[in-house]
Amino acid sequence: MNVGIVGATGYAGVELIRLLLAHPGIAIKRLTSRAEAGRRIDDLFPSLRGYLSLAFEDPAESRFDDCDLVFFATPHAVSMHSMTDLLARGKRVIDLSADFRLRDVDIWQEWYGTTHAAPELIADAVYGLPEVNREQISGAQLVACPGCYPTAVQLGFLPLLEANAIEPDRLIASCASGTSGAGRAAKVNLLLAEASTSMKAYAVSGHRHLPEMKQGLTAIAGSEVDLTFVPHLTPMTRGIHATLFAKMTKSEVDVATLYSSRYRDEAFVLMTTGQYDPETRHVGGTNRCEMSVTRPGGGDTVVITAAIDNLVKGAAGQAIQVMNIMLGEPETLGLTSPAVVP
Amino acid sequence: MNVGIVGATGYAGVELIRLLLAHPGIAIKRLTSRAEAGRRIDDLFPSLRGYLSLAFEDPAESRFDDCDLVFFATPHAVSMHSMTDLLARGKRVIDLSADFRLRDVDIWQEWYGTTHAAPELIADAVYGLPEVNREQISGAQLVACPGCYPTAVQLGFLPLLEANAIEPDRLIASCASGTSGAGRAAKVNLLLAEASTSMKAYAVSGHRHLPEMKQGLTAIAGSEVDLTFVPHLTPMTRGIHATLFAKMTKSEVDVATLYSSRYRDEAFVLMTTGQYDPETRHVGGTNRCEMSVTRPGGGDTVVITAAIDNLVKGAAGQAIQVMNIMLGEPETLGLTSPAVVP
Amino acid sequence: MNVGIVGATGYAGVELIRLLLAHPGIAIKRLTSRAEAGRRIDDLFPSLRGYLSLAFEDPAESRFDDCDLVFFATPHAVSMHSMTDLLARGKRVIDLSADFRLRDVDIWQEWYGTTHAAPELIADAVYGLPEVNREQISGAQLVACPGCYPTAVQLGFLPLLEANAIEPDRLIASCASGTSGAGRAAKVNLLLAEASTSMKAYAVSGHRHLPEMKQGLTAIAGSEVDLTFVPHLTPMTRGIHATLFAKMTKSEVDVATLYSSRYRDEAFVLMTTGQYDPETRHVGGTNRCEMSVTRPGGGDTVVITAAIDNLVKGAAGQAIQVMNIMLGEPETLGLTSPAVVP
Amino acid sequence: MNVGIVGATGYAGVELIRLLLAHPGIAIKRLTSRAEAGRRIDDLFPSLRGYLSLAFEDPAESRFDDCDLVFFATPHAVSMHSMTDLLARGKRVIDLSADFRLRDVDIWQEWYGTTHAAPELIADAVYGLPEVNREQISGAQLVACPGCYPTAVQLGFLPLLEANAIEPDRLIASCASGTSGAGRAAKVNLLLAEASTSMKAYAVSGHRHLPEMKQGLTAIAGSEVDLTFVPHLTPMTRGIHATLFAKMTKSEVDVATLYSSRYRDEAFVLMTTGQYDPETRHVGGTNRCEMSVTRPGGGDTVVITAAIDNLVKGAAGQAIQVMNIMLGEPETLGLTSPAVVP
Repeated sequence: MNVGIVGATGYAGVELIRLLLAHPGIAIKRLTSRAEAGRRIDDLFPSLRGYLSLAFEDPAESRFDDCDLVFFATPHAVSMHSMTDLLARGKRVIDLSADFRLRDVDIWQEWYGTTHAAPELIADAVYGLPEVNREQISGAQLVACPGCYPTAVQLGFLPLLEANAIEPDRLIASCASGTSGAGRAAKVNLLLAEASTSMKAYAVSGHRHLPEMKQGLTAIAGSEVDLTFVPHLTPMTRGIHATLFAKMTKSEVDVATLYSSRYRDEAFVLMTTGQYDPETRHVGGTNRCEMSVTRPGGGDTVVITAAIDNLVKGAAGQAIQVMNIMLGEPETLGLTSPAVVP
Repeated sequence: MNVGIVGATGYAGVELIRLLLAHPGIAIKRLTSRAEAGRRIDDLFPSLRGYLSLAFEDPAESRFDDCDLVFFATPHAVSMHSMTDLLARGKRVIDLSADFRLRDVDIWQEWYGTTHAAPELIADAVYGLPEVNREQISGAQLVACPGCYPTAVQLGFLPLLEANAIEPDRLIASCASGTSGAGRAAKVNLLLAEASTSMKAYAVSGHRHLPEMKQGLTAIAGSEVDLTFVPHLTPMTRGIHATLFAKMTKSEVDVATLYSSRYRDEAFVLMTTGQYDPETRHVGGTNRCEMSVTRPGGGDTVVITAAIDNLVKGAAGQAIQVMNIMLGEPETLGLTSPAVVP
Repeated sequence: MNVGIVGATGYAGVELIRLLLAHPGIAIKRLTSRAEAGRRIDDLFPSLRGYLSLAFEDPAESRFDDCDLVFFATPHAVSMHSMTDLLARGKRVIDLSADFRLRDVDIWQEWYGTTHAAPELIADAVYGLPEVNREQISGAQLVACPGCYPTAVQLGFLPLLEANAIEPDRLIASCASGTSGAGRAAKVNLLLAEASTSMKAYAVSGHRHLPEMKQGLTAIAGSEVDLTFVPHLTPMTRGIHATLFAKMTKSEVDVATLYSSRYRDEAFVLMTTGQYDPETRHVGGTNRCEMSVTRPGGGDTVVITAAIDNLVKGAAGQAIQVMNIMLGEPETLGLTSPAVVP
Repeated sequence: MNVGIVGATGYAGVELIRLLLAHPGIAIKRLTSRAEAGRRIDDLFPSLRGYLSLAFEDPAESRFDDCDLVFFATPHAVSMHSMTDLLARGKRVIDLSADFRLRDVDIWQEWYGTTHAAPELIADAVYGLPEVNREQISGAQLVACPGCYPTAVQLGFLPLLEANAIEPDRLIASCASGTSGAGRAAKVNLLLAEASTSMKAYAVSGHRHLPEMKQGLTAIAGSEVDLTFVPHLTPMTRGIHATLFAKMTKSEVDVATLYSSRYRDEAFVLMTTGQYDPETRHVGGTNRCEMSVTRPGGGDTVVITAAIDNLVKGAAGQAIQVMNIMLGEPETLGLTSPAVVP
């Protein structure tokens, strides 16, 4: 099985390469990048020396003819320009970017500030959250993988929304991300000297992942949800920690049992309720989501905490989980290494 | 003005010393510690060499006869054993520990797991949050300084609760602390190798600061409040970041104006709404609280973000602000250095 | 092939488990620990949940009857008490601790401050640095794996000493370690709040790894070497960075060629001379040693820089490399994952 | 006393402001910056809100008419263009940049890769290392402050070179810097996600601070010295740690006494020999240099370790120390705050 990657110069891209190298039966055949065309991947990322020596091709000239499947690990508003052609030529595509996540093109255009280049493809794109959409993913030609925050938030609220056990119109998500979530971009505010001793919220008045979360949660709930989402920047490289709050409408529900039942057969969701608190380091480099659910003081407010690796379950690992489903392979194939701890 | 400090072997204690050294007219005369009796403070904390060379005295033998004011920077359940004697001998006391913060001794005993040794003193202890209690502090003999989380949370909700503009029974506080908040204790989970690459929530089912917050917020609101509080451990040394959520009951209130008016004359609360997001590094080593208030999407949920230094506005700096009030000095005396940035 | 591990409660132990889980054909059958007897390994290290659920046994009662090979990941002065019995019962042993590293028992006793319990076994113990001792390792029953600093320092000086191209009596090693090198011990100086913003040298007047380095370098050189070694504590979790200085006696030697020739067939030594500087993050979680050699200004001083992961090439990974040699397997078996970057 | 600052948009500049704000009798009157002209300093650095609200002026239009003294906190090759004019108009100038540090303009041009614009001023510029050059500084009109690495390295070797007690032609300096030493520049390699978990050497074949060190050490020794200098990037924001090696030529010298005598009257050099190891956190935000001197094993190799804050004793603090000397004030004026620990 041959695959290609568009935009493997960022953190999600290099993580995708690392994970694909551990996947039996996958060969990475092509990497493209406008900025780095001609440069070897292991020159850009020395940790890959001895593992992969491909040079980046110019995306304008690469047709991925010898690839069965193409990943996009690009910023938003890139994949939409190539998608029509790739799909027409029969390629299956897993898009880690935002271009085909939102069903409503107007909302997409409002939040991403540009005109969508391929709105006619949106309807057939499948949202790649396996714990929700497994069946549709298996037959899809184009899968739009969720963002990092949306993965943690949707997995967190999922069992309660499915059980119709919380008020859907006052959900609250207070989440924190390591700085790799902002990408491999040279920005002053992401320098070690600026970010390493500090914590801050950002985008409190609105973040691009908010409409994606609302869309997904609404689909799960079967009715309109409202969500307040506050992301934070935390001084660590990797990890998303989500702390979610909702009000129970069904006091009698045993939330610990509800969650452990819902996730019993999910390979990548590990409930820790009553044992220990989810920690991002436990899941670093893995596709695992640790999760705990609590009703403090036995009251009607329910708190879910969840930890994922933003670059794995929040990006590259989920893309491979999706690929496994598309290929009819076991979902965990190539995703079985434990976290490097400490 | 001569002062003594009980328990200056922890982080709040050494920070208190640093700040008092910059305070004109204060002389640190005595330091006590059971564990370190006989050892010089600048041997324990080399950064103090050339600044203070006092040796710790055994607390059992120190009567603070030549001190006008005594600070306690001890763990809980220590100051309560010495308080009766000190007050009887006319000392004024500023207690950074939890012993005299809660008005209800039963609640104190429940959360701190021991019998209170001086319950009869609780009624006369003043809660040392200057932005609320300035007048009572000025005449007090015993002031119980707030905890770090309670300072950020109370200052954050204060204007909205005073204005009776939010639902008081569904307040949510999602807060994060640097690891110095857990004290200078040799614990595996606080090692750099364990804590530096990770984020986690803890004490989700209940934290000792919760009853203190409820008591303070209820006093401010004038009616019973309910609060869900989730603290997090973040990989930084200092800082509390609080993200607070509430539902507006008075939609017409302009929250930015409400907050800027309420805090216009407060020297240590700096509103940043609409300018930038509060960051813990901006306030590191200072007594400042940066705060911003937002209604995301113009909706009915209001989000307050606030950043303080847990060891300064959350402990030692607030104690000095309280001392200044007790002594009739300007509140900012000795507390005027900006943060060391980067 | 069944193996057991004594002392898998520390960082080298848990890393050994992580790496053995990825090794085909190895089954971890027994874990022992005095302190944690009865506790499950995945309770102590939640990142192992779903991977290994063995409970620690009391070392006093475990005979490793069903194990072919036993690893010791214990502090010093532990393995020496069990070694005679294990060897007598035919077990092969790989000792990650210091007990059998030094040939001269007097020197060992001087530096480790206790009497050696099995000095008669020292002569037959093989020093487990594969790049030097491959052949002896293959037939050994007891292998004493090198320490983390000694691995980096010996690999760094090796080609020049073998070529007799530097003054052997004025070697200098300035090395830095992440805090995991100090072990999973609750010590105040290793707290995030103490160690995360700082760098310091330590043990300048003498470190336990010094005699081990001298012994190894002398064996390589074929004549007595003298070495000044200064270790430093650096604010990172993993990694050893070594910066080595020597004076050339053969000016005509092309050091870049010398090193690339010497290490061409070594799977785990990667020369980066002229390409980029070795970085600890490039080798994190891997058994790789990145190394560069330079003669600044073309002069007679030669500088070698090397980076390893202290817990892998400096401990657990090297032990597995040794095991592969002992078992006649390819050295890289189970050690082929690239670093998790960023 | 009115001062102006050119280039206060970088880390040395903002640190200079922070320290000058604490200095009695100094008023900051003007700040210039080409890139930030018109922007308020406290908009760029929110930690300065309430302390300084000056807007940056365009350097092309600012003549500093109302300033007695001007600081340059600019990159290299900037101050040399304005210096002739400023000096002609009688201003005294303290230059934190490299433009007037090297006496030999050819060497300067070689290392900085450009033509020097004011070579005729070099001869009268005084090198601003107070512990060496105090007298010349006091009467100087133009002082070129040392770089961060050169400060630590020169202070470290000073007593032994003055005593003619070491071989001058084989000095070795292995130094590490926090990332703020690379400036407030948006570079990928300085991102938290790249630099926070790693250590590396850089510029092993030659660093711009090397000729400055050689010049200074040669002046101290009275004869040509040779130095091998290897800088490292360490995952912390501030701090320089220097580990220096030399061979004793006078074995009988008691190095501890030599150093404590030499630095007894220096306010900013604190010997810690035999007490504890210098640590960068002990000196963070202060103008102090902690230093220890050791002869490991009592041998002929001497090791000096030293810690400074690269932005204070390595830049802004030293500039203020220099200013105090120029103004005939006590050297410690405005430089008396202890480090913020932890």
